[in-house]
Amino acid sequence: MKAVVLLSGGLDSSAVLYQAKTDGCECYAISFDYQQRHRRELDSAAAIAHQASVVEHQVVKFDLRLWGGSALTDNAIEVPQHRSISEMQDRIPVTYVPARNTIFLSFALAYAETIGAERVYIGVNALDYSGYPDCRPDYIQAMQEVFRLGTKQGREGKQISIFTPLINLKKTEIIQLGNTLGVPWQETWSCYAGDDVACGVCDSCQLRLAAFAELGLKDPLPYAQI
Amino acid sequence: MKAVVLLSGGLDSSAVLYQAKTDGCECYAISFDYQQRHRRELDSAAAIAHQASVVEHQVVKFDLRLWGGSALTDNAIEVPQHRSISEMQDRIPVTYVPARNTIFLSFALAYAETIGAERVYIGVNALDYSGYPDCRPDYIQAMQEVFRLGTKQGREGKQISIFTPLINLKKTEIIQLGNTLGVPWQETWSCYAGDDVACGVCDSCQLRLAAFAELGLKDPLPYAQI
Repeated sequence: MKAVVLLSGGLDSSAVLYQAKTDGCECYAISFDYQQRHRRELDSAAAIAHQASVVEHQVVKFDLRLWGGSALTDNAIEVPQHRSISEMQDRIPVTYVPARNTIFLSFALAYAETIGAERVYIGVNALDYSGYPDCRPDYIQAMQEVFRLGTKQGREGKQISIFTPLINLKKTEIIQLGNTLGVPWQETWSCYAGDDVACGVCDSCQLRLAAFAELGLKDPLPYAQI
Repeated sequence: MKAVVLLSGGLDSSAVLYQAKTDGCECYAISFDYQQRHRRELDSAAAIAHQASVVEHQVVKFDLRLWGGSALTDNAIEVPQHRSISEMQDRIPVTYVPARNTIFLSFALAYAETIGAERVYIGVNALDYSGYPDCRPDYIQAMQEVFRLGTKQGREGKQISIFTPLINLKKTEIIQLGNTLGVPWQETWSCYAGDDVACGVCDSCQLRLAAFAELGLKDPLPYAQI
């Protein structure tokens, strides 16, 4: 059974790739070069894809900076630092990129239909990223309907199903899951800041570090500040 | 009121752009350079956007050839010629590109949310292109739900609505509509073959020519063969 796995190179999508393997899928990874500031994650995606022995790893390139509007793609907006977890969860964050998961899932759908895959895996999470509209179950359900109606394969009754194994997990539970699956965390990348060493103080680094700490584990990735 | 208009440079999307203008919208056109063989349509899109005095015309570039599987992007598959209209409508055609409208609408959604547009116009047509799964009303309805749930703007109750003014029109009716709107047909491009002059014998040229002929009108575009 073939599966397309959305792989950013971060902690969540890496865990999802290992989950898809464990589910018995032949995995086809897809990553996106959208001129994100934290381009280091693309190297991590390639390293993880290699370690997980995927059948193929496609990197789709396009330019979302055209539209600005997010701290992840617009150099004029600062990536927040040193915020508390409750501040992060307060509202839709500046790191929100308009329609990002919709674009990602659309390309994954095209890839899945071309190779005849039955599944698309995505590491969305409704808890730690509650601020993002396109990480919630009702949104995934709506995309599932698009997958069914928007493809030749779906119209012919061979549904391409969206799998979201992390959707109801806390970050600590994702790390526990990844540990049982053997995810090489030292190869993953979460930092939004765009430097060569993870900053340790952006929202993404903080959420990751807090989760490892809560489990009494050490994150094997080096950080500039902790 | 701002509107994003998907503009391929073809007859249908050009009519849609003029319809959006007539509806009182400030128009932002978006086109896609996906390494399609019929790249001439991008020049047509630029010419039409200019003539229609759009506020902005974005061309998003990405590579769908990665996946092959369609005569429009895979040089190894022949574009059908000299087929009868009933043969064209028989089944999902080889010119089908997996998830193409889903990818296009996703980028349009990102653009719409970034500029604060209330509408996205797309020239899908359920009659002449009945073979394409992603041109049908139920598919558009599913994407509308993604627009609502997958964006910050939609979650806050400011819906971005998908307008499909051509969905129930026949090609002849689209031409009649375009004539009343003043669409400059000579600037549009429909041919799939990828040459400098429209071939006149691919499905797309044939449908267009047949519609002009049925109305007793002359298509102002030059053709290699008629």
